[in-house]
Amino acid sequence: MNMLSIIDKHESQVRGYVRSFPTVFREASGAELWDVDGKRYIDFFGGAGALNYGHNPAPIVDAVVRYLQSGAIVHALDMATEAKVQLLQSIEGLLLSPRGLHYRVQFPGPTGTNAVEAAIKLARKATGRQNVLSFTNGFHGMTLGALSVTGNTFKRAGAGVPLTNVQFMPYSHYLGEEADTLGYLRAFLEGGSSGIDRPAAIIVESVQAEGGVNVASTAWLRGLRELTQELGVLLIMDDIQVGCGRTGPFFSFERAGIAPDIVTLSKSFSGLGFPLSIVLLAPELDVWEPGEHNGTFRGFNPAFVGARAALETYWKDDAFQRETEAKGNWVHEQMLHLSSLFPSWEVELRGLGFIHGFACVDASLPSAISRAAFEEGLLIETAGPEDEVLKFLAPLATPREHLAEGFNRLETALRRVFQQPRERNTP
Amino acid sequence: MNMLSIIDKHESQVRGYVRSFPTVFREASGAELWDVDGKRYIDFFGGAGALNYGHNPAPIVDAVVRYLQSGAIVHALDMATEAKVQLLQSIEGLLLSPRGLHYRVQFPGPTGTNAVEAAIKLARKATGRQNVLSFTNGFHGMTLGALSVTGNTFKRAGAGVPLTNVQFMPYSHYLGEEADTLGYLRAFLEGGSSGIDRPAAIIVESVQAEGGVNVASTAWLRGLRELTQELGVLLIMDDIQVGCGRTGPFFSFERAGIAPDIVTLSKSFSGLGFPLSIVLLAPELDVWEPGEHNGTFRGFNPAFVGARAALETYWKDDAFQRETEAKGNWVHEQMLHLSSLFPSWEVELRGLGFIHGFACVDASLPSAISRAAFEEGLLIETAGPEDEVLKFLAPLATPREHLAEGFNRLETALRRVFQQPRERNTP
Amino acid sequence: MNMLSIIDKHESQVRGYVRSFPTVFREASGAELWDVDGKRYIDFFGGAGALNYGHNPAPIVDAVVRYLQSGAIVHALDMATEAKVQLLQSIEGLLLSPRGLHYRVQFPGPTGTNAVEAAIKLARKATGRQNVLSFTNGFHGMTLGALSVTGNTFKRAGAGVPLTNVQFMPYSHYLGEEADTLGYLRAFLEGGSSGIDRPAAIIVESVQAEGGVNVASTAWLRGLRELTQELGVLLIMDDIQVGCGRTGPFFSFERAGIAPDIVTLSKSFSGLGFPLSIVLLAPELDVWEPGEHNGTFRGFNPAFVGARAALETYWKDDAFQRETEAKGNWVHEQMLHLSSLFPSWEVELRGLGFIHGFACVDASLPSAISRAAFEEGLLIETAGPEDEVLKFLAPLATPREHLAEGFNRLETALRRVFQQPRERNTP
Amino acid sequence: MNMLSIIDKHESQVRGYVRSFPTVFREASGAELWDVDGKRYIDFFGGAGALNYGHNPAPIVDAVVRYLQSGAIVHALDMATEAKVQLLQSIEGLLLSPRGLHYRVQFPGPTGTNAVEAAIKLARKATGRQNVLSFTNGFHGMTLGALSVTGNTFKRAGAGVPLTNVQFMPYSHYLGEEADTLGYLRAFLEGGSSGIDRPAAIIVESVQAEGGVNVASTAWLRGLRELTQELGVLLIMDDIQVGCGRTGPFFSFERAGIAPDIVTLSKSFSGLGFPLSIVLLAPELDVWEPGEHNGTFRGFNPAFVGARAALETYWKDDAFQRETEAKGNWVHEQMLHLSSLFPSWEVELRGLGFIHGFACVDASLPSAISRAAFEEGLLIETAGPEDEVLKFLAPLATPREHLAEGFNRLETALRRVFQQPRERNTP
Repeated sequence: MNMLSIIDKHESQVRGYVRSFPTVFREASGAELWDVDGKRYIDFFGGAGALNYGHNPAPIVDAVVRYLQSGAIVHALDMATEAKVQLLQSIEGLLLSPRGLHYRVQFPGPTGTNAVEAAIKLARKATGRQNVLSFTNGFHGMTLGALSVTGNTFKRAGAGVPLTNVQFMPYSHYLGEEADTLGYLRAFLEGGSSGIDRPAAIIVESVQAEGGVNVASTAWLRGLRELTQELGVLLIMDDIQVGCGRTGPFFSFERAGIAPDIVTLSKSFSGLGFPLSIVLLAPELDVWEPGEHNGTFRGFNPAFVGARAALETYWKDDAFQRETEAKGNWVHEQMLHLSSLFPSWEVELRGLGFIHGFACVDASLPSAISRAAFEEGLLIETAGPEDEVLKFLAPLATPREHLAEGFNRLETALRRVFQQPRERNTP
Repeated sequence: MNMLSIIDKHESQVRGYVRSFPTVFREASGAELWDVDGKRYIDFFGGAGALNYGHNPAPIVDAVVRYLQSGAIVHALDMATEAKVQLLQSIEGLLLSPRGLHYRVQFPGPTGTNAVEAAIKLARKATGRQNVLSFTNGFHGMTLGALSVTGNTFKRAGAGVPLTNVQFMPYSHYLGEEADTLGYLRAFLEGGSSGIDRPAAIIVESVQAEGGVNVASTAWLRGLRELTQELGVLLIMDDIQVGCGRTGPFFSFERAGIAPDIVTLSKSFSGLGFPLSIVLLAPELDVWEPGEHNGTFRGFNPAFVGARAALETYWKDDAFQRETEAKGNWVHEQMLHLSSLFPSWEVELRGLGFIHGFACVDASLPSAISRAAFEEGLLIETAGPEDEVLKFLAPLATPREHLAEGFNRLETALRRVFQQPRERNTP
Repeated sequence: MNMLSIIDKHESQVRGYVRSFPTVFREASGAELWDVDGKRYIDFFGGAGALNYGHNPAPIVDAVVRYLQSGAIVHALDMATEAKVQLLQSIEGLLLSPRGLHYRVQFPGPTGTNAVEAAIKLARKATGRQNVLSFTNGFHGMTLGALSVTGNTFKRAGAGVPLTNVQFMPYSHYLGEEADTLGYLRAFLEGGSSGIDRPAAIIVESVQAEGGVNVASTAWLRGLRELTQELGVLLIMDDIQVGCGRTGPFFSFERAGIAPDIVTLSKSFSGLGFPLSIVLLAPELDVWEPGEHNGTFRGFNPAFVGARAALETYWKDDAFQRETEAKGNWVHEQMLHLSSLFPSWEVELRGLGFIHGFACVDASLPSAISRAAFEEGLLIETAGPEDEVLKFLAPLATPREHLAEGFNRLETALRRVFQQPRERNTP
Repeated sequence: MNMLSIIDKHESQVRGYVRSFPTVFREASGAELWDVDGKRYIDFFGGAGALNYGHNPAPIVDAVVRYLQSGAIVHALDMATEAKVQLLQSIEGLLLSPRGLHYRVQFPGPTGTNAVEAAIKLARKATGRQNVLSFTNGFHGMTLGALSVTGNTFKRAGAGVPLTNVQFMPYSHYLGEEADTLGYLRAFLEGGSSGIDRPAAIIVESVQAEGGVNVASTAWLRGLRELTQELGVLLIMDDIQVGCGRTGPFFSFERAGIAPDIVTLSKSFSGLGFPLSIVLLAPELDVWEPGEHNGTFRGFNPAFVGARAALETYWKDDAFQRETEAKGNWVHEQMLHLSSLFPSWEVELRGLGFIHGFACVDASLPSAISRAAFEEGLLIETAGPEDEVLKFLAPLATPREHLAEGFNRLETALRRVFQQPRERNTP
């Protein structure tokens, strides 16, 4: 039987990306993948943010393989292990101290949605309040608590029950460039009869990736931090998709110079796509009782090893950040170039660092482009509530030649979609 | 700085098992662990059910290491991969077909709580109903949806909001041996004014592990299956903790000869403690829309490789099951022996297969015994709402000599707790 | 146009009793009604409990008419009025003091559902807990909070949203005569993992009228009071339908010798069917902030005047209670007699005081009997989740000759339903 | 014992207005009240909107007294009565037909909160959706469903549980004069990822009375009607406080020329302060099952008689409306005059028809003025989330001389508060 038909027959209808990228993958390295037929793909998808260091980054894979071969403990719940201690030291020494940040680390379970659930629980416990605010187009996960702070109508409907104890506020620019969305938020929070009960926390992404590559302005982020501090509301920064260097610096909120009360990290945090998430919490919020939130896989030591290797490989100095920023500028120029090629294309360019999007007026375009790109050997995905954004999310570690190759393939795909012959015009 | 004090300083207060077992672990193999000081421990804890095949089972670790070394794809979301196709084939060929079961496989994310959330979502979607029934002492996870079907008062309080759309029914024997708990359930479901809205599903564990090693009778399980079929209510079997052979057969519900509508598996499913969970769902329930439930780590291929290796190593025939049952009987005898040693010990023996418990009238005893055992070099945990049960959950693959060694250490610990000198009386 | 067709055309489909009793009523007195065609009816329906003193009881109507004619204030919100002060004095002097009860009075709005909502709010506020327990077949009202403690599946579905923060427990005898429902309740409340979060309160009717004339035993009521006191859970007695003398004494719980923490009264409390309800609350629970619960019609003074007249007319001594009990015994004998007339009638007799029911195995019978009775000039209603109970709820003040006439008509109706000729056999 | 101390001793702390107006009232007529000491008060409070026709309006009281004296049926649940039929005819003939409106009538119970609960239930049932939108500063009642659409933080906290399935949107002008609140609403309703699930209905007051005398512009109301129609969302107009002529025409939404899908009426609808409410619903929405929403006092016939008398007395032509509008203009001038008397008074004048407010920057002023006015023999209340608005809500039927007298007393009170001697300057 054909391999894809085995998937069709035995895997649930819920499967998604296999429909966008209908082949069976076998190998992967950096920003390259190969399917079982040997066809090669350039990866502008980046594991939806989980592969910032590329597929199978050698120093990280080596560390993990060495660990596994050594007979070291793999699964430890939240017992202490050498690997965990070393990771905690690297987090403190490479991430927090250098940035003047003070957090304790919680291992809430290995997925981003676990981290979001734990963060919200903690905020409610620490404040004694039940309401939480989230933002339009926010995306935070699929378990019931995380889904309740996720804006997407389709995903929300999957809950099958009302999603409660959360109210949504307009994100930066959601109501147009002119609207004072922070002023609106303040009016709701300060009004004694606004219907918005004083929240425990506000959860926010500094750049909404799934939501359509919406970049909050630094002024907006700072204003949000000030407002929450003024009103005694906790600020949870969900840095799962755009942390770990995606926007340049390790934490996406560094560009605004703020320190959230709680930070969630996952996706690329383990370095090689192993499931791992952490919650960083201000020490004074650490009101957890022992075991009050638990989970079987919160002590997945190979992921600890990977995470530590990632920090020590990529974040021991600012070289990686500077390289991401430099390449990001080049990416931006490529996208600008592409966006100007087709006069009929009504498109807005969004993004910063290594996350960029073509936001299309015609919401059917991104899927068409993605399909054409796949045929050209390029993985690139859509985002936004109507899939109206084509999202560039290549590994940060993508070599420049693979970036160039990817943009070449994208241009070919675009030309096919816009039905223009390809000229000789290498970016 | 001392390693444990690094944990104390940097990890959140929420950490739990490190308090019961205050050392730093380094290596592990089978049912043995070693801490950084070289002290050796026998493991009657079994990763809370995630290590049925022991720590670092060679055939599984080898398969995973080979996979990582080969440059094969690690993280693939729900794109198709060779590893996934092969796992689907093993599930069908080794688990389902031989048992006459018909299910589709959903990869809902790598943790048990993801699987429970997905199962409940699907049940609500497939039936259009919102209410779900769970049982006293049920334990299903920490994210909001899974927590809402979890009985534990302390864990529930961690939610910080009311847990809604769920009603609790008395589990087999919860109201004493005489009470007809299925009749109770039927009276609530059939009454037109019972206050219990017709549920989408009933979620149940066939043996409640965290809940205190409560074993539902096969008659009760069969009655539950009949009642749910009669009333058009879905039956979700949460086999996360006691599946994968814990009770003897692969699925814990095999002893009752029933087929649930939905089954959740996780913990030992990946074979070596890697995060992985699946949902098995009756094909006619597969009403998911593509991408309606998603998650970053639902395509963690090394875990697929481990899971397949586990199935092919342990479940290609019934030898492993028979060995578990045989050793389980021996374990039961040991526990019977121990329970008779101390006349003052008011204790009830519970369990089957490779899950057993000493349920103590004095709820402070199990923690005291666990502490003493730790000092003797034995990991053993407590369970039950008041931690009133000492729970035996050693890896199924524990060699008999390590089982014997563990029970020796347990006896020593018990004698210390009951302040009796140890006689020469090897079990 | 025919008067009923005006109803059909202009009133919502939600209308109910006009379908059971399809005529247009004009006058009423005691237990008699006359429709616009002059047809006379005997009333065994009693305004669903709102007309314990009969239609248009002279001393009460006179007091109200005098009040209205005097130019006294009618509508006063919760400003003080002479009528309110006098009612408070009567409540204290005639209801509370003589029975050794100590309560403050809240006027929560004029309907029973207002009172139930206020009682639940107060219980949650006073305890800081959110969960409330109610009982199978409980009926407490149609607004969202009251509906959430109401068991009826059909009414609950009308909410259109999940009814949350309430769990249902089996009422006295719900699980058969043998089952220890108080023991079950205790097992859920004391278990540390029962899924039943510690409740603010338990709301109960001592006799479930709408629920099917289910009479809790006095032992059960006392046990419930003891259990709630032991566990610090408030006991709310909803005495809306069976208070005001329906069971004999003014409060239905007097027969059990208990004092609830909160009592709700409405229906007959105003004496003549004017909307009025009160909440009686133990003084130490009076933690309301001024205006925290309000409502436009909480100061409906003509109803205060009626309520006072009712107390002074019927409750200045125990004569009315004794008469109700005596007549109630006679009613019981009549019903026993009727229930024995038709060998094929599988029926159980329920009730006490002036509330009785024929609980029929064939759930279609009560409606058929009610229809036949209507044709014979008798109003009598059904109750219970399947309308399987024919409910006697005549005004307490019904003269014996009208009771006799009513039972005669009922017998005729029964004979028609059972298709037997009527013999000369006056009860 | 002093009468007020009887209130203090026996009535719950929840009492409110008796604290603002600490005396015991006995008689009332039109816009005059007298307390038990014979002191006379002018009423600018108007029973919070329940006394539009004044206290004890002769034609209405006479009709009710005649009804009671005739032996006609008082309490009839939802059986048909002559009084109900006649009221339905008056509603059709005097309210609906002349205005080209087509509604069925539901009697949901006698209070406004019953009507709001029924309206929301019906909207959810008719659409199959669960979410409902309400507006900042909206006020709709105290039972759980009505409270969930009420914005006031203090009242909401009284619920003791989260208020769910409702989201709040900014009312006309809530975000300042410039902000496009309808555009805000549209952006949330049309966005596929706004977090606002498609609502069953939007509930709105055309003038928010309790919320602080906030007048929605007619353009806003029309835009809201168009938006809801476009998106298939029901529009519920809560006309409980500002219907029955308060703004001039019978329905407050007449000024915008719109027809809501559902209208709630109560307060002044019975004409004399008797509890009565109705829900008007578009015929195609009448999807109620018989008895799906019920209540003991939904057939309070004396209130039907009063309501009919009110319609036939005041609404048989447009004279009463024109008089209200004329007097309303005069009232506005008086308030303008008063607002200019004290240079230090930072005040904004709001309102239309016979509802007006002094919105004060210093939120402590209105309560101080109200207290001073009470001493001068004038009842006038505060409104708004911080009680920052002094609200004029005199009966519509107040004679001009009593209006003048009231404003004189108000001026005296204002001068006392602003500590200025009163000059001879009669308005």
